[in-house]
Amino acid sequence: MTRGRSGGKDSVMTDTPESPAGYRTLDEAGIRAFLASRPALAARLGGTPGTWRIREVSDGNLNNVFLVDGAQVDGTGGGVCFKQSLPHVRVDPNWKMPLDRTGFEAAYLHAVRPHVGDLTPDILHFDPDLYVLVVESLDRHVVLRHGLMRGGDWPDAARAVGTFVARATFPTTTLALPFEDVSRLLEPFSRNHTLTRITVDLVLTDPYRVHPRNHWLSPALDGIAARIRTDPGVRRSIGRMQARFLTCRQALLHGDLHTGSVMVSGTDTRIIDGEFATPGPIGFDCGLFVGNLLLHLFAMGNAAGRDRALRDIGRFWTAFRDEFVDLWRVATLRGGTGDAYAASLFRDDATGLLQAQDDMMREVEADTIAFAAMEVIRRIVGYAHVPDFDTIPDIATRAGRQGAALSLACDLLADPKSAPSIAALIDLAHARACDRA
Amino acid sequence: MTRGRSGGKDSVMTDTPESPAGYRTLDEAGIRAFLASRPALAARLGGTPGTWRIREVSDGNLNNVFLVDGAQVDGTGGGVCFKQSLPHVRVDPNWKMPLDRTGFEAAYLHAVRPHVGDLTPDILHFDPDLYVLVVESLDRHVVLRHGLMRGGDWPDAARAVGTFVARATFPTTTLALPFEDVSRLLEPFSRNHTLTRITVDLVLTDPYRVHPRNHWLSPALDGIAARIRTDPGVRRSIGRMQARFLTCRQALLHGDLHTGSVMVSGTDTRIIDGEFATPGPIGFDCGLFVGNLLLHLFAMGNAAGRDRALRDIGRFWTAFRDEFVDLWRVATLRGGTGDAYAASLFRDDATGLLQAQDDMMREVEADTIAFAAMEVIRRIVGYAHVPDFDTIPDIATRAGRQGAALSLACDLLADPKSAPSIAALIDLAHARACDRA
Repeated sequence: MTRGRSGGKDSVMTDTPESPAGYRTLDEAGIRAFLASRPALAARLGGTPGTWRIREVSDGNLNNVFLVDGAQVDGTGGGVCFKQSLPHVRVDPNWKMPLDRTGFEAAYLHAVRPHVGDLTPDILHFDPDLYVLVVESLDRHVVLRHGLMRGGDWPDAARAVGTFVARATFPTTTLALPFEDVSRLLEPFSRNHTLTRITVDLVLTDPYRVHPRNHWLSPALDGIAARIRTDPGVRRSIGRMQARFLTCRQALLHGDLHTGSVMVSGTDTRIIDGEFATPGPIGFDCGLFVGNLLLHLFAMGNAAGRDRALRDIGRFWTAFRDEFVDLWRVATLRGGTGDAYAASLFRDDATGLLQAQDDMMREVEADTIAFAAMEVIRRIVGYAHVPDFDTIPDIATRAGRQGAALSLACDLLADPKSAPSIAALIDLAHARACDRA
Repeated sequence: MTRGRSGGKDSVMTDTPESPAGYRTLDEAGIRAFLASRPALAARLGGTPGTWRIREVSDGNLNNVFLVDGAQVDGTGGGVCFKQSLPHVRVDPNWKMPLDRTGFEAAYLHAVRPHVGDLTPDILHFDPDLYVLVVESLDRHVVLRHGLMRGGDWPDAARAVGTFVARATFPTTTLALPFEDVSRLLEPFSRNHTLTRITVDLVLTDPYRVHPRNHWLSPALDGIAARIRTDPGVRRSIGRMQARFLTCRQALLHGDLHTGSVMVSGTDTRIIDGEFATPGPIGFDCGLFVGNLLLHLFAMGNAAGRDRALRDIGRFWTAFRDEFVDLWRVATLRGGTGDAYAASLFRDDATGLLQAQDDMMREVEADTIAFAAMEVIRRIVGYAHVPDFDTIPDIATRAGRQGAALSLACDLLADPKSAPSIAALIDLAHARACDRA
C-alpha cells in the first residue's frame, strides 16, 4: 500500500458498503482490551495489559497500525503489530472505503505463509467483525525503501524478495495444482475489487490520459508527460499490458510489491501489506519491485548507490527465476498434478522441460520489464509518488533525474526490443543513469 | 457436448454430489405434467396437454432431451425442447456426474442471448430443482455435422458461427466492461469444474500421454500417435496451450463449439449445448470450430466438399474477426468503460486502435490454429471421435485420411510458423488434403 496516498473528491472507489453493525474503530484502550481478551495474544505479550506499550505507526497508510510491546522487550520478538481497517482512507475521511482490505491481507498471508516461511510476518489473529489483523511485530526492521534512501545496504534483501515471489506464486498456479484447486483458491481474491480498482486506475490507466489525479514537476517534465500520453508505441504497449493484467490469471499475486512493502533487519527480509492480493500475471509482482529499484537507481546521486540498485535488480530476478523453475522441476519429477505443462509431458524429458520453462520465464520477463516501466511512470507523473526523489533538494536536479527515469521507461514501452531481458535492462539502465549523472 | 461419449471405470469426474432432494428424472408423463403446470409453456404449446406429442431425441447425449410438439404443428415454431440433467452420463449410469450442467447451459444462454439474438435457441424456462432446461424447439433444423456428412451445404452457417463467437465473447471481455463487471459475470462459470475437467483431460492432456481412454486405427496410425506423444515441438506447444487455456481469462466461452453444437435450417443457424461454458481464451471457441471443419475436410472424398470446408474456415474467421473488431471500434468511439485497451488510449487514435486490434487478433489467431490442431488430434486418437470418418467404408482409406489430418495437426503444433495465419492454414490444409486425395 502506498503511504501518503490520499483521497478527495475524485474517488476511484466503486462501492462503499456501510460498516457492519459489530464494527467500531478501536482506540488505544480498545486495542489493549482487545488483546487482553485473546489469551494467545495476551500470553505472547506477557505481563499485565496495563504495562503494554502501544505506539501508533500508521504513517500515512490506508489503515490504523499500532505496534504493541509487552513484557518481552529484550529482543525476543514478543511484540505484536495491530492493524485495523477504517471505513475510509485514514488520512482522508471523505474517501470512503469498504473494510474488507485487512480480510484480503489475512487471506493472502494464510495462502502463502505455508510456502514462504519467515519471508512474511507470522499471522497471529484476524477478527472479521472488527477487521483487525494482528501479526508479529517487526519493530527492529526498517522499511527497505527508507533504508535505501538513507544509503543503507541489505545485500540479501533483493534475493529474498525474488525467492518470496517464486514461493508465493508457484504453489497457486496450474503448474502446481489441478485447475479446480486453483479456481477455488483464487476465487475469493477475484473479489478484491476495491484495491484492484486502485491499481487499474492509478497504475494502468491514469498516467496515459489527461486526469486531475496526475501531477509532476512542471514545466520541466511537461514534454515527457505528453510523450507518455501520445507516443504510439507506448499506447500500444499500455493497451496490451492493461489486457495482460486483467486477463492473465497466472497466480495469486501480492499486488503491491514495491520497496515500501519490504522490511529488512540484517539478513532478515519480510514482505508485508498483502491487501492488494489478486489473481494476475506473475510479472506484475516482479515488475513493481524492479520498477521501484529503478526509481531508486535514478534518484541516487552516487555511483555506489546506483551500482547497488542494479545489482539488486539482477539478484532479485535471478533468485526469482532459479527458485521458480526449481519448484517446477521438482513438481514435475514427482509427477505433480498441475494441469498446465503437465508432468505427463515432461517428467521424462529434462530437455523439453528446460525449453518449456524458458518459454514461460521469457513471458514473465517481458511482463516484468513492461510493468516496471509503468511503475516508474506512475510514480513520477501519476497520483502516488515515491519519496526516493524528495531528498534531492535542487528541483532542476530532481527533474533531470526523474526525466531520465521517465525517458528510459518510455523507451522500454515504445520498443520492447530495446531491453529483451532483465540483463539488457540492467545494461540500459546503467548507461542511462550514468549519462544523466 | 460430444454425442456418444461414454464413461466407464476410468472416470474423469472430480466430485459427484448426491442429487438434491427435489430432483427426479422425468418420464414422458412427468414431462407432460411439468409443461402443463407452467402456464407460459402450456400456452406456447397450445391445445390440451393430452394432445402434445413427445419424442425422445437424446441421441447419445449426457442428458435426456425430448422435443415436444403442441397444437402448433403448422411450422409456426411453437414446439419446445425439453432437456434434463441426469445424475450420471445418460449412456453409462456408472459414470456419476453432478446435475448442474443444465444450470451452466441456462446461465450461458442468459449471458449471451441479449447479444447474439437468434443465433441461439430462445430460452423459455429453467427449473433449478429438477435441472430442466426448456428452449425453443429446432425440429426443422439439422445438426451441421450430420448435414455436412450427407454432402449438404449451408453457405451462411460458418459466417453465422463466426459472428456468434464475436458477439458472445466481446461483451464479456474487459475490452467492453469494467473489470469488476467481468469478474462478477465470469465467477459462476469458473465453477463449471466437472465439464471443464472433461475438456482438460480429453482435449488438452490425454492424447499426449499413454492413457487407456485413447484409441485409434491400429496399427496404421501407431507411428503418428507415437509422434504426437514424443515430438519435442509438439510437447512444447501443448504445454503452452494447456497454460493458455487455464490462465487466459479473456472472455466467456461456449467451451464446446464443434460442428455438432451448430444447427442449421436454410439460412438460419443456431448454436446449442452451452453447458461447457467457461472463462478462457477466445481462440479456444474458434479453434474447436475450425478443427472440426478440418476434420470434415480430411474425411471428405470429393474436391467440392473439401473446397466447401476450406471456404467455411475462411468465412468463419473473417466473420469473427470483422465483427469482433467492429464491436470493439464502436465501444471505443463511444468512450466505453472497458479497462483493457482503454477507450482513453484509442478514442482519438484510429491508427493506434487498428494496431492494437491487430495485436490482439494475431494472438487469437495463433490460439485458434493451435487449438484447432489439438481438436483434430483428440478426435482421431483420443477418447471421443467424430463420425465424419465413419462413412469411409475402407479402413485403409480411412486411416490414410486420418493420418493426413494428424500429420497436418502435428506440423502445426511442432512448428507454429508453418501456418502463421488462418489464410496460411487454409493453403496448407488444401495442399495436404489434395496430396492425400
